[in-house]
Amino acid sequence: MTIEQQRTETVRIDQERLWASLTELGEVGAYFDAETELMGVRRLALSDEDIAGRHLVVPWFEKAGLEVSFDRIGNVRARRPGLDNTLAPVVIGSHIDSVATAGRFDGCLGVLGGLEVIRTLNDHQVETLRPIELAIWTEEEGCRFGTDMLGSAVAAGRISEVDARALTDAQGISVGSELDRHGLVGDRPVPVAPPAHYVECHIEQGPILEAGGYEIGVVTGVQAILWHRLTIRGRAAHAGTTPDALRHSAVLAASLVTVKLDEMVKSGDYGALLANVGRFDTSPNLVNIVASEAIITVDFRNPDEEAIQRASADLLAYCWEVEERCGVTISSEITAHTPPVEFYDEVMDEVEQVANRFGLSNRRIMSGAGHDAGEMAAICPTGMVFVPGRYDGISHNPREYSTPKACADGINVLLQCAVTFANQE
Amino acid sequence: MTIEQQRTETVRIDQERLWASLTELGEVGAYFDAETELMGVRRLALSDEDIAGRHLVVPWFEKAGLEVSFDRIGNVRARRPGLDNTLAPVVIGSHIDSVATAGRFDGCLGVLGGLEVIRTLNDHQVETLRPIELAIWTEEEGCRFGTDMLGSAVAAGRISEVDARALTDAQGISVGSELDRHGLVGDRPVPVAPPAHYVECHIEQGPILEAGGYEIGVVTGVQAILWHRLTIRGRAAHAGTTPDALRHSAVLAASLVTVKLDEMVKSGDYGALLANVGRFDTSPNLVNIVASEAIITVDFRNPDEEAIQRASADLLAYCWEVEERCGVTISSEITAHTPPVEFYDEVMDEVEQVANRFGLSNRRIMSGAGHDAGEMAAICPTGMVFVPGRYDGISHNPREYSTPKACADGINVLLQCAVTFANQE
Repeated sequence: MTIEQQRTETVRIDQERLWASLTELGEVGAYFDAETELMGVRRLALSDEDIAGRHLVVPWFEKAGLEVSFDRIGNVRARRPGLDNTLAPVVIGSHIDSVATAGRFDGCLGVLGGLEVIRTLNDHQVETLRPIELAIWTEEEGCRFGTDMLGSAVAAGRISEVDARALTDAQGISVGSELDRHGLVGDRPVPVAPPAHYVECHIEQGPILEAGGYEIGVVTGVQAILWHRLTIRGRAAHAGTTPDALRHSAVLAASLVTVKLDEMVKSGDYGALLANVGRFDTSPNLVNIVASEAIITVDFRNPDEEAIQRASADLLAYCWEVEERCGVTISSEITAHTPPVEFYDEVMDEVEQVANRFGLSNRRIMSGAGHDAGEMAAICPTGMVFVPGRYDGISHNPREYSTPKACADGINVLLQCAVTFANQE
Repeated sequence: MTIEQQRTETVRIDQERLWASLTELGEVGAYFDAETELMGVRRLALSDEDIAGRHLVVPWFEKAGLEVSFDRIGNVRARRPGLDNTLAPVVIGSHIDSVATAGRFDGCLGVLGGLEVIRTLNDHQVETLRPIELAIWTEEEGCRFGTDMLGSAVAAGRISEVDARALTDAQGISVGSELDRHGLVGDRPVPVAPPAHYVECHIEQGPILEAGGYEIGVVTGVQAILWHRLTIRGRAAHAGTTPDALRHSAVLAASLVTVKLDEMVKSGDYGALLANVGRFDTSPNLVNIVASEAIITVDFRNPDEEAIQRASADLLAYCWEVEERCGVTISSEITAHTPPVEFYDEVMDEVEQVANRFGLSNRRIMSGAGHDAGEMAAICPTGMVFVPGRYDGISHNPREYSTPKACADGINVLLQCAVTFANQE
């Protein structure tokens, strides 16, 4: 342990202050969710509700003494100066935009937890060699403008500012016009200068930590994502008068594909493959008509890029079999593909060591979902801290819940990591 | 051959007059169908378009000398007197209501062909012992008020007048209020007095006659119909973060059922079983969410009631397996069940003999779809004449088409059968 680590080893964040911040931000964009009969959160990126969220949080940053600036895509950067401000900063952060039916934790824990880190360092008058910057990334969810991790991807240089501004929502409103309307285009250029390190704390959004009784997840990376949209064309026919041999059912073809995907996952031939048919639309969708068309989506995940590509190829080969067997045609479009991200050993090791020193049970875990950290990993040593969620880690749902202690555990680990990296020369 | 048969043996209907009537009625309720880029027909039962169709056709009946009356459910009966009007009539007929995306032949061929029979008998001054009555049955399609063969079922006594009047459409408008609004409630009581015979000519609505090059189908009956609606409840989950073992996908469960049904059909274990999953709705229907719910419909058909019941029971047994395997719950509701109808040997024999005498190639064929004749078979000797349709017999679609000659062949057979039965003492 370094001297700096020893100095902050006993520092702990204020669990109640963090919880109060999460609760207050959770009121912005709140709505009554009829299905769960709970209050949910709806702050679609760059909507008035999202901006109201920023108007609540950014003054908190300023009150904590941070120097707030914006980059060209509206990402917020709030700086706590270090002893040597010529050095690249350590960045911590996440997002406060949400899906349409969100809870209070997704993204917000990373941002408000980052703020709690700053407040705690201020309270304890801890100084660091490097500056620490707190980031709010624009449009992480991707559900308004169709591309997730948009702000961090522009910051990291994977997507150009021009392309990002041109993206439009379902009403044809562009990212650029919304950035301009809300006055969010700042001076800082994109891509940004690489930070020294990037660390993000996030809820797991899955059941693994809760099921195993773990308090901290040491995130090893983000698995690869590959999405297909399959359009299956059969032939409409009367379900009473058409002999079986003359049927070309798009629903049967789509069902064969769905069952095959389950067999592929359970075969073990593709490692830790996951596959989901989440959308299943058919036409004309009537009880007594053989379906002429079906559109299904396939969501593949795999930590291993080779295995996900092989699964994708084998899916398409099986589609040819189904074409033959059912007398249908199947066209496939890849609608998303991000290769796997591996986080950095030094960050994973640090997260793990802090958790162990603090007596927090932990395990290494691959992230099933995409995160801003996945973008930042392209330009600097990056890692993540996961905290467990209740109810099998349900997320993107008003039932999303992590306990005050679970949130505080994650942010205490985040604080130690931030200080450690901010004191590295 | 009887003396009466010999007298009418050389009588033929006027193919062009029949075609002109079909064409003129096809203009009523015509609409442009964007999918096929053809003009289609939309005369939902008891709609203004359906009534406009009746206002075109009923004056034709009167001009042909028929005495027009209505029963309590709006079925039209138009009588050509016989030599002995104390005898039960021979009834021929069908319907002129249509589905939302119809062609010009379904039902209309039976009604306008029946009119052509009357016109032809008039032209040739053919008298019959019994009266011949022409029927237009109310709401055969069932797509507005949810119960098909409604008018003939009330006439035959399977459904009560009170229950039929109480049925409502999607806007809450009742059959009774529509009958009253259009002034269609007549004096003739329901159930009706049993006719001597009932014979109906209809397009096949399937590919069998066309594929085999047959000009006439001798209909042996209507196969049993059994519909299930399965509601499958799984659990919504993030498709990236939820391990496979913790998924409860309603789409996978529904797909397993769909594939199993195909295996059951192809096994041959259930005779001439047909099965169709036509509706497949899922929720939330998003690419990266494991589906929490699926609703699918199963349309079973089988000429054999025992076999269709066995298939239904085996489906439910398989659903229990799927519940276990996928960790879902499946509830099942039977939404339709009509046992098979067998038509009468004497009518089948007569249709077959006429076709053979006229040199028309023919085969016996089970009807895959329900027809008004299926209801009338409960109260009198009944049969049907099928004519082939083009394009695999596509129906309920603007592409529905039978040639002028195919229509005339069927109606020539219908005429001979009607005269034969109308001369039976």
